[in-house]
Amino acid sequence: MELLKQTLSQIRVLDTNAMAKTRHRVDALIKPPGSLGRMEDLAVQLAGITGNPYPAVDKKMVIVMSADHGVHEEGIAPNPQIITAIQTPNFVKGVTGVCAFAKQSGAEVIVVDIGVAVDVDYPGVIQKKIRYGTDNMTKGPAMSKDEAVQSLEIGIEIVMEQIKKGYNLIGTGEMGIGNTTASSAILSAISNTDPMEMVGAGAGLPEDRLSHKADVIRKAIEINQPDPRDGIDVLAKVGGFEIGGMSGTILGAAASGVPVVVDGFISTAAALIAITIEPKVKNFLIPSHCSAEKASKKALEFLGLKPMFDMEMRLGEGTGAALAFNFIEAAAFMVREMITLEESGITL
Amino acid sequence: MELLKQTLSQIRVLDTNAMAKTRHRVDALIKPPGSLGRMEDLAVQLAGITGNPYPAVDKKMVIVMSADHGVHEEGIAPNPQIITAIQTPNFVKGVTGVCAFAKQSGAEVIVVDIGVAVDVDYPGVIQKKIRYGTDNMTKGPAMSKDEAVQSLEIGIEIVMEQIKKGYNLIGTGEMGIGNTTASSAILSAISNTDPMEMVGAGAGLPEDRLSHKADVIRKAIEINQPDPRDGIDVLAKVGGFEIGGMSGTILGAAASGVPVVVDGFISTAAALIAITIEPKVKNFLIPSHCSAEKASKKALEFLGLKPMFDMEMRLGEGTGAALAFNFIEAAAFMVREMITLEESGITL
Repeated sequence: MELLKQTLSQIRVLDTNAMAKTRHRVDALIKPPGSLGRMEDLAVQLAGITGNPYPAVDKKMVIVMSADHGVHEEGIAPNPQIITAIQTPNFVKGVTGVCAFAKQSGAEVIVVDIGVAVDVDYPGVIQKKIRYGTDNMTKGPAMSKDEAVQSLEIGIEIVMEQIKKGYNLIGTGEMGIGNTTASSAILSAISNTDPMEMVGAGAGLPEDRLSHKADVIRKAIEINQPDPRDGIDVLAKVGGFEIGGMSGTILGAAASGVPVVVDGFISTAAALIAITIEPKVKNFLIPSHCSAEKASKKALEFLGLKPMFDMEMRLGEGTGAALAFNFIEAAAFMVREMITLEESGITL
Repeated sequence: MELLKQTLSQIRVLDTNAMAKTRHRVDALIKPPGSLGRMEDLAVQLAGITGNPYPAVDKKMVIVMSADHGVHEEGIAPNPQIITAIQTPNFVKGVTGVCAFAKQSGAEVIVVDIGVAVDVDYPGVIQKKIRYGTDNMTKGPAMSKDEAVQSLEIGIEIVMEQIKKGYNLIGTGEMGIGNTTASSAILSAISNTDPMEMVGAGAGLPEDRLSHKADVIRKAIEINQPDPRDGIDVLAKVGGFEIGGMSGTILGAAASGVPVVVDGFISTAAALIAITIEPKVKNFLIPSHCSAEKASKKALEFLGLKPMFDMEMRLGEGTGAALAFNFIEAAAFMVREMITLEESGITL
């Protein structure tokens, strides 16, 4: 609890001085004012987060949290649970979707076993297993409050270690069969929305089983009665270890003044937990895409985050974040590489 | 005319054999089928364009065509015409918006003076001036048919030279004060839409002068009567040298089996000219963004192109194309870097 408390106390407001300097420069650049649209706003946000009017976001990393879900036994996912364990080493091998996209954007990928249902013995997988998957949330809380805090603190530790190594742009990724169910439950609980509006096909659940998925979530919320104003309570009762790890990653990055990119639906749920714990964290978040998971748009709207693109992706893993790194880096390049009208000798 | 004819005859249909192979692999990759959405379609299109089931798009270039417009004297732009000449060398210096974004995506930028109103003597600016700006299209054709063909052939020559050097992904960029007026005229003429629906603020024209801009375009169309089925006729009568250069770039890339990225509004108009000349070229086009120029969405819809993102940009230059290179390259990385479920030992 100590690390979490300390981290929360370190989350500042954005540096308005740096933001003003960047806005001034961006307005003066050799282009019609405002003509680079949201790229300009992105540059200003980066300045506010980093405190640097010429922000650098050149060392990029996606942190993938991997864990399993007790609720899987309720038949809410089309795939067997073992896929989580099989897929986890593939992030080290560099052969997953997020690895391909990260290679393109020049980002590193690391993977953390924070609660996979079986042992994952593969060199390079970071071992932080809390236990072998959460409990079935339809029968009681997915995890204890202590475990929820532990998952957050693992995320904080991991991200701070990477930031110490020089990483200055972080993306949140995940692997966990069944985790759209936990994410929908988090979003339903905090936004007080009926689960049916927050469920989607996940990795490919047939349409006719969506109402079953919603029923499972409804039952979990009824039994556990998560307090929507208490992010740790919601995480413990209807969340997941990897989701807690992602929320911790977000909190740790924000506390370090490092921008952190929200990926798709699961990542949005983790962001919501983090914001519920500490609302100031929202300023440090950069949305990437609207995923094809039905509730993704709704979740982003609830958070007030406007996605940059919609390529109808729904893989998760951090794929959207890895792609979005390019835009964020380009916004920083804009500030550094372009000259001003004045420097160019143009007077209008 | 010979080069143009020859180029048009070289534009093939997409390689369906390569496309089928890529689709098969993409479906088998270690992810739920279809879960990378439009990135999957992009990979398949790249295979069809290049004839390679494992397409490579790692040598990227934005070709910026720069020229002036006689119609500028009608007061349709907020900026003086000399900006085109001042800005042109800045693409060589690497200090413009597209240069910043291209640096991020690892792309080269070249700039061609295809019709700037004054001499641009700066080393590195490619000299292909047809003449010192087009004529005022409200008083007659902007250029002769011969000049229109010349502009297309310059684009073809330039792009083929670059493709010979190894570039395998081309973006279309431009610089030309007043060129949203010519682009709106092209789109109005070919889509048979009233100019008022096709005009926007360009580089910052005040709202109350938009109807004047539409009047100017209406007059140009009335006087010149461009034939909407004849791309060269439309280009000559209400187009521009840089727009012809971009259309030529598109035709030349397509003829060479190289994917070519449409940037914003001007680039969409150039694409429309190219498609009107040779409809098969459409398959070789990859849209990038919907620009904040009001008619951009309409123009893309008319062409049947679905943009990848909307960052509310309206700078032009090829900025959207340079950003989109990242997505296109990522789609190719997906095919090459990810393994299949089978290769991973997963059986479902």
